[in-house]
Order: sequence, then C-alpha cells, then structure tokens
Amino acid sequence: MIAIGERINGMFTDIKRAIEEGDKEPVKKWAVRQIEAGADYLDVNAGAASKKPSETIKWLVECIKEALPDAPIAIDSPRAEVMKAGLEACRENGIKKMLINSTTGQREKLEYNFGLAREFGAAVICLTMDQRGIPKDVDYRVEVAATHVATAMEYDIPVENIFLDPIAMPVKHAQDQIKHIMEAIRQFTLICSPQPHIVVGLSNVGQGTTQKELVNRTFLVLGIMNGLDAAIVDVCDAELMNAAITAELLLNKQVYSDDFIKAYMSRARCI
Amino acid sequence: MIAIGERINGMFTDIKRAIEEGDKEPVKKWAVRQIEAGADYLDVNAGAASKKPSETIKWLVECIKEALPDAPIAIDSPRAEVMKAGLEACRENGIKKMLINSTTGQREKLEYNFGLAREFGAAVICLTMDQRGIPKDVDYRVEVAATHVATAMEYDIPVENIFLDPIAMPVKHAQDQIKHIMEAIRQFTLICSPQPHIVVGLSNVGQGTTQKELVNRTFLVLGIMNGLDAAIVDVCDAELMNAAITAELLLNKQVYSDDFIKAYMSRARCI
Repeated sequence: MIAIGERINGMFTDIKRAIEEGDKEPVKKWAVRQIEAGADYLDVNAGAASKKPSETIKWLVECIKEALPDAPIAIDSPRAEVMKAGLEACRENGIKKMLINSTTGQREKLEYNFGLAREFGAAVICLTMDQRGIPKDVDYRVEVAATHVATAMEYDIPVENIFLDPIAMPVKHAQDQIKHIMEAIRQFTLICSPQPHIVVGLSNVGQGTTQKELVNRTFLVLGIMNGLDAAIVDVCDAELMNAAITAELLLNKQVYSDDFIKAYMSRARCI
Repeated sequence: MIAIGERINGMFTDIKRAIEEGDKEPVKKWAVRQIEAGADYLDVNAGAASKKPSETIKWLVECIKEALPDAPIAIDSPRAEVMKAGLEACRENGIKKMLINSTTGQREKLEYNFGLAREFGAAVICLTMDQRGIPKDVDYRVEVAATHVATAMEYDIPVENIFLDPIAMPVKHAQDQIKHIMEAIRQFTLICSPQPHIVVGLSNVGQGTTQKELVNRTFLVLGIMNGLDAAIVDVCDAELMNAAITAELLLNKQVYSDDFIKAYMSRARCI
C-alpha cells in the first residue's frame, strides 16, 4: 500500500501552534516519525485557518527537507496558488517525488492541476466529483474517473501518476454509500491497463464514530480486496498498518515470511 | 455473520481431559462462554484420538443441553456413523437447529449426508472437494459447489441450509491459494438466488504463522467483502468478532448506531 501520512496538517493543534510560532521541531518530528512508521508520502496542509497558506506550505516543505532530504511530499490544498507554491518549494528543495492532493473533475481545475503535474512531474489525486457535486452512485464515480484518466493521457501524465479517489464518506452519516464506494474501487481497476492507483482519505470513514480506528482499518481491508492500493492515513496507527500489510500478504502482493510485518516495514524505511 | 464456535473439540487439552474423565463442567463452561461471545452454532468434535467417537459426541451434546437448552449444534466428524449418532443425540435432546460439519462432494458421501440433512432438517457444510482431492483453482471449487447445490435440490434441502466451504488453506504453506479462495467465494454468491451460505474454517488460514489472530481476522474481512457470511471461529476472540461486525456494518448489513457492536452482541445473545 502507498501510505500518505496525514499528520502534518494545520488542523492538528501542535502543527497549528508550530506554524504560528515558526517552531520547526514538531513538523520535523512528525516527518521522521511518519516515515519510520511506513509513510510513502508526507502530506502537508497549512490548515483552514492559515492566513498566508502559500508561505506556510513553503515553510512546511523546508522543515521536512531539513529533517529528511528525500521524503516524498504531497501538497494538500484546494487553492490553485497554494498548490503551485508548494510544488515550487519542493522543486527548490530538490524533492523528487511530489503528489498533488487534489484536483476535482471540473475542466478548468483539471487543466490547471494536470498542467502542474506535467510541469513538475508530480502525481495527482483525482477526486471523482465535478461541478455536479459529491457523487451518490457508482456510475457517476466511474464516469468522472474515466474522464480523469482520459484527460491525463491528453496531458502526457503517465497512468502510474494518477490516483483516483472515490471520495470516502463517513459511515455514521452515509452508511449506504460505502457499498457504492467499494464497487467504484473495483470498477476503477478496469478503466485501463496498467491500472491507475486508487486512494481514499481514510479518516473520513470513521469520523464521529465511537470506534474510529476499528472502522477505518476495516474499511481499508475491504478496499484492498477491491483494488485500493493507496490511502491518506494515520500511519502511526500500527494496527491499521498491520491490517493493510496483512491484507496485501493474503492477496499475494507481499511474499510470506514469518516476519512479514517487519520485512514490509524495513522495506518501507529504505526511502 | 453466522459464527460457529470451534472450542468444544477434543483436540483442545481441556476438552480432551473432560471427555476422558467424564467431567461435564469444561464443556458446559465453553458452551455458555461461546454463546455469550456471539456464537450462532456450537461445533462439537470428539477429537481424532477418541476411541468411541459416537458415544463421545452424544455425551458432548448432552452436556451442552444441560447448560443451554436451545443452543444450535454443529456435529463435526468425517465419519458417517458419528454424524448420525450426533444428530440423533440432538433430536433426543430436543435441539432444533443442527448443522452437519461436513460433507465432501463424492456422490456416496453427498447422498448419505444429504439424506441425514433431510431426515433431521439439518443444515450442511459442503466442502468443495471430491474424489479428485483438494482444489487448486477457482473453477474446480465452483464446479463442485454447483454440484452440491444441484444435489441439495434433488434432496429437497432448502438453499438456506447449504453452507458452501471453499476450503481455506494456510497462508504459510499455500499463499497463492488465498486469492483463488476469495474469487471462489465471490462466484459462489452467483450460483443461485437466494444464495447459499458461504463458510470457512478460519483458524486454518493463520495456522503456523506468528500473527495468527491478525491473519485470521484480516482474511475474514476480505472474505466478507466477497460474500462470506459464516465462519468456524474462535468466537471468544473479541477483535475477530468486532472486525466481522464492523465489516458487515460498512457493507450495510447492520444498521449503524454509535453502539453498533453492543447492539449486535445483544441481538446475538437472544438465542
């Protein structure tokens, strides 16, 4: 699984405070801790309250660079200028692997973000929604996903740089949607070959439930069964990571050894 | 999920000793404990070492009856005369729900066990193997499963009394088989409508691994995604049961409430 660590986000109190006070240590600590826990990308988000999000994103990238020179970074913002500032900061700091988190399917958004993806050689998380709003059924999700993939081809973006996101909903408020999301994941794997990556923002699913961790990791295993191969997650939740590693083992995506979890983690830490 | 509690089995030291000494208490204790933990059936197995398995099975049924007058019982034996003795003991003790665990697909075995199923109104676990041995691919499993279902119809056994078992293999020794088993489960759901139950002996999967519980419960969630709706399990493994309950919740088979695990368990305890 491609694990995208969600923790460097201004919505968390310690990161918010670090941003306000210009204190690099919490950011550097979470960068190292997440990579050690198996993160393949570090997501950075200035937080909704940030007044200068472009500057904040740039600073967050610099903090990570100081701690880990080669850590792949996902720039997390719905704002065009913040996304560009983040990618520029990555380039200036010699970060090689970048991920745009995220674009929706409106033509102008897609063109802007795919333009950036091509310019920076970045991968892109493509939410399967457009001007019509959040999808309620499988067909809508698959239709938008197919448009994403087709448009990516126009922009010469290789399919391995496309991460389709069916938009995971909270089970508490949209229980009936989970089944549709699972079927959408399954159908995404059929859009083209080799297939695009498929990603979800996992913490949405358990939001507001009394059993958040259990709900999230169970959703993750169900998703992996259907072809999900990436997720924005709390990588420091060892039970979550172990569930994902074991699901991939059972589906023959990792080779069995008695120490299969340790084997996976030491591979992950090579980044 | 239909949970079949595996614990009353002569292969466990305490049950073996109880059988040898004629001590009813351990059997009664495990009967109550498993039903409280959410078991829908109690599996009873005299153990491979038993010299008088028919008598032992009868005695085990009587022990359970003393502890719980209405507990559904699964008679677990590959031997024709033991199966019959177990079912007769159930009938004599007024047990209403019985499960034959198990038959294979050889014609004479099938006819014998389906004959018992009809006579006793019992459900049947049908292993998808026959004279050709343990299946190695999806098609063989589905072919045998379809024969099971068709033969059951000849015997007037309602489809809700059929439990197809794709024969779960240990990931340690047959890692590549798990994917086939998952696909077989998915195809079993398409054999007829309403569909038969689908069951596995879950503890086989994690056998010999250093992470038995994690492997078993992850397999269970993957299976539930594909249509698995029953399992022979350690029902007292709360993490396992919670994973199954949560998987069914996410797939909309249970209604969400903040206390969904408690809600499920109190329903289970009504038996």
